[in-house]
Amino acid sequence: MAGKLYGVGLGPGDPELMTLKAHRLVSQARVVAYPALSGSDSFARAIAAAAIPEGAREIVMDVPMTVERGPAQAAYDAGAAQIATALEAGEDVICLCEGDPFFYGSFMYLHARLSGRFEVEVVPGVTSITACAGRAGVPLAARNERLTVLPGPLPEAELRSRIEGAESVVIMKVGRHLAKIRGVIAELGLTESAVYVERASLPEERICPLSEAPEKAPYFSMILLTKGADPWL
Amino acid sequence: MAGKLYGVGLGPGDPELMTLKAHRLVSQARVVAYPALSGSDSFARAIAAAAIPEGAREIVMDVPMTVERGPAQAAYDAGAAQIATALEAGEDVICLCEGDPFFYGSFMYLHARLSGRFEVEVVPGVTSITACAGRAGVPLAARNERLTVLPGPLPEAELRSRIEGAESVVIMKVGRHLAKIRGVIAELGLTESAVYVERASLPEERICPLSEAPEKAPYFSMILLTKGADPWL
Repeated sequence: MAGKLYGVGLGPGDPELMTLKAHRLVSQARVVAYPALSGSDSFARAIAAAAIPEGAREIVMDVPMTVERGPAQAAYDAGAAQIATALEAGEDVICLCEGDPFFYGSFMYLHARLSGRFEVEVVPGVTSITACAGRAGVPLAARNERLTVLPGPLPEAELRSRIEGAESVVIMKVGRHLAKIRGVIAELGLTESAVYVERASLPEERICPLSEAPEKAPYFSMILLTKGADPWL
Repeated sequence: MAGKLYGVGLGPGDPELMTLKAHRLVSQARVVAYPALSGSDSFARAIAAAAIPEGAREIVMDVPMTVERGPAQAAYDAGAAQIATALEAGEDVICLCEGDPFFYGSFMYLHARLSGRFEVEVVPGVTSITACAGRAGVPLAARNERLTVLPGPLPEAELRSRIEGAESVVIMKVGRHLAKIRGVIAELGLTESAVYVERASLPEERICPLSEAPEKAPYFSMILLTKGADPWL
């Protein structure tokens, strides 16, 4: 009988924000799989590290960070083939995912390649957007507010028009797009209400008004634009 | 020394989707607090029930479900006062929140009332939006997609215009608004790609195409409108 593939969300970074289910699955794993970007350490593996059993086999997908998608697709093809071999041999495979597997995660690439042939279970995790809001002390959305999540790499004009019509806004993957995003927010007169958060829940976490944000932001950084205090509270 | 208030996200319903941190805090609690709507059982308490120590004191906020906000505000005023008394006596208070405290949660009412006077920590939880996507096998958002979260009670015209310009859409709190939402989605020709999910992660969970959804939906139900398969995968 074939094994089962688990896409396991590990949360935003603090290992204690793993779910009980994620912790159980990782602790009992015989095979774990995870992507590592451009040969660097895997963030997902680092979150789960203390729970991975000694002797568990590790399938590492070395994903190149290129603009063209071909090389990354080839890496996921190769990873999916290795995972399929383990599943065919009757082994369950625990795929480690930072945050949530289906929220801007790379697990969807494996899901697309393997869910037709094997049983797959997605275990949701705490996303960075609520982790950041919690750490910043800013409610993300309430009652009948709309929430818009925008990736920072979007073109300037699109960011502007999407922020303009929105209520609560989260801008993810800020990284090298910080200057562009900062400009858009300033043009819209929203700098005062913008909060910058990087590496939420980790020891090196940083939270400040956008006006005091550093010049360079890491990939795992976010800007929150929320309505703030509500007269109806 | 005053105690600390914790707003603890418990996830979408399956107790195993509590985080390790939420489980630790609840297991060590001496005082827990939670809202119960209109005298019915508290969903948050039910998620955490097995972890609440015997002998823990429980502060129940009986929140009336009325259209005017006054009665609910009075209930949160009274709950905040009881919590403040415990905090002033040096006790930590664990406030139980389904999902995530700052994602359409009622904890923000306590946060607004108490965060100026007491230390408050928000512990994020798994939200229903990623839990539903995971259970439905539908990636919620990928790469540079925009994600829009819309509450079902929004007026019909607003729902229509917000869905029209969007990419991935989640409609929350469907409940008694199902017929209206179904109509909007049909008008936009999106019924085929819409997935209905109720009570994700619970034993009574139900997932189906929107076209096969029941006539009556519970409050904890959701509709997912995602892009589906991606030719670039």
